[in-house]
Amino acid sequence: MDDKSVKLSGSFKGNTAPKSFNKNPIKGTKFTIAISSAKGGVGKSTFAMNFALALKSLNCKVGILDADIYGPSLPKMFSINEKPKSEDGKSMKPINQYGIQCMSIGFLVDEETPMIWRGPMVTSAIKTFTQKVLWNDLDFIIVDMPPGTGDTQLTFAQEIKVDGVIIVSTPQEIALLDVKRGIKMFDKLKVPILGLIDNMSFFQPEDGKKYNIFGEGGVEKTAKKFNKKFLGQIPIDIDLRISADSGKPLVEKTPDHKVSKIFTDIEKTIKGSFL
Amino acid sequence: MDDKSVKLSGSFKGNTAPKSFNKNPIKGTKFTIAISSAKGGVGKSTFAMNFALALKSLNCKVGILDADIYGPSLPKMFSINEKPKSEDGKSMKPINQYGIQCMSIGFLVDEETPMIWRGPMVTSAIKTFTQKVLWNDLDFIIVDMPPGTGDTQLTFAQEIKVDGVIIVSTPQEIALLDVKRGIKMFDKLKVPILGLIDNMSFFQPEDGKKYNIFGEGGVEKTAKKFNKKFLGQIPIDIDLRISADSGKPLVEKTPDHKVSKIFTDIEKTIKGSFL
Repeated sequence: MDDKSVKLSGSFKGNTAPKSFNKNPIKGTKFTIAISSAKGGVGKSTFAMNFALALKSLNCKVGILDADIYGPSLPKMFSINEKPKSEDGKSMKPINQYGIQCMSIGFLVDEETPMIWRGPMVTSAIKTFTQKVLWNDLDFIIVDMPPGTGDTQLTFAQEIKVDGVIIVSTPQEIALLDVKRGIKMFDKLKVPILGLIDNMSFFQPEDGKKYNIFGEGGVEKTAKKFNKKFLGQIPIDIDLRISADSGKPLVEKTPDHKVSKIFTDIEKTIKGSFL
Repeated sequence: MDDKSVKLSGSFKGNTAPKSFNKNPIKGTKFTIAISSAKGGVGKSTFAMNFALALKSLNCKVGILDADIYGPSLPKMFSINEKPKSEDGKSMKPINQYGIQCMSIGFLVDEETPMIWRGPMVTSAIKTFTQKVLWNDLDFIIVDMPPGTGDTQLTFAQEIKVDGVIIVSTPQEIALLDVKRGIKMFDKLKVPILGLIDNMSFFQPEDGKKYNIFGEGGVEKTAKKFNKKFLGQIPIDIDLRISADSGKPLVEKTPDHKVSKIFTDIEKTIKGSFL
């Protein structure tokens, strides 16, 4: 009997090939920046929220689109407990909080209700958020992407003019593997990558020593390998986590915090490449 | 003009309602245990791999099905670099490593290739792994689930007899929100929940102090609230991360490590409820 190695069949492979699409900007917005990671739980949402607030503090008009249908974080992180209003029953007004226009699937359902949805339903929700929300004269819309390389990523890459992606990762090797897959996906789908962030870089307890809990240097190395910009390190910081859990992100709550200042510095780089 | 609150339309809601399905066990296996978290990056895969190895050390025959199509971890965590063999061109043999039968999408593609797939492709891959893999006389098959409450979770819940789910979370509130959604999903889909694990509970550096980096007690509280079993705490441990990154999980590499012993204790509880 002949033992053969198994590979993906042609029909599977065919579906991963890129096609051309008409890409439109999200109505009411100038630039769309997606925050992605491919891997979940690396602090992507905490980064996205603080990133948006830091952009606002540089006098930009900013919106946040929480595109994580299965695990929306925006309602909790921004203490939003109201439902969006509609004047015509078709479109929705974003909710204003901390001077930022916000939209999330979490505004439409109870916070503990799971969205037990197959892919096409997710795609349809994403289309609603990009086409039916009355974003008002935004310089930047920040899209908090879900983990993975599936329906949401494909819908954005194929149908929306995404001006840049920031990829967030912890330095752990197993997370970086997902990041590499993410980079290859965005390159393949021709979405420009603005740079990589090394999140949860180290923890510095009261003894003053730095502990590289998740490893060291891996994100910068990955950026170099793929010829992408390295945007900086954000340490593990208990204040950052507490503020996210409390519904008022650190950049808004304590703008002078050393970690808030890291965000503002990153922001200046990013803003400078657009405006 | 009349401002109305927006809710999910009926057609969206209809799709979240449970239906009845014929559920079959995975061929060649006695019990299927899924490791889930709804939230990514909480250490679910590290837990799943060490969990499987601890079960093996209790003289069970164990397999691991890596069901995370977008972010497979098994090839890296178990140092597997070979492709599965097929004798008839239809079925696949699992790969044996550390005495465990293994299958992952990562065995079929290069480790950095992203699976840029929409939902139906994911479902089809999951069906291949549950129907076309020659699992051989296993007591337990451990399924490492992806984050979310989407296609993979639905496919398992509707088509496969899952004997129990273990839910892994960090104590961070924003992670617990996803966990609550996960619990509600499995309850709705009538998949029994074996219990909850509090992962990355605390970090204890050389100064001996305990730092609750991600918060404290939230997982146990959530277990109580939903009337589920609390299975225990696993600390943040640099050895645990290094061993996962190095391709030989801690329970296999250092069975006497204090963290390995936590796994063996959890295992005894779980094994006892089945065999």
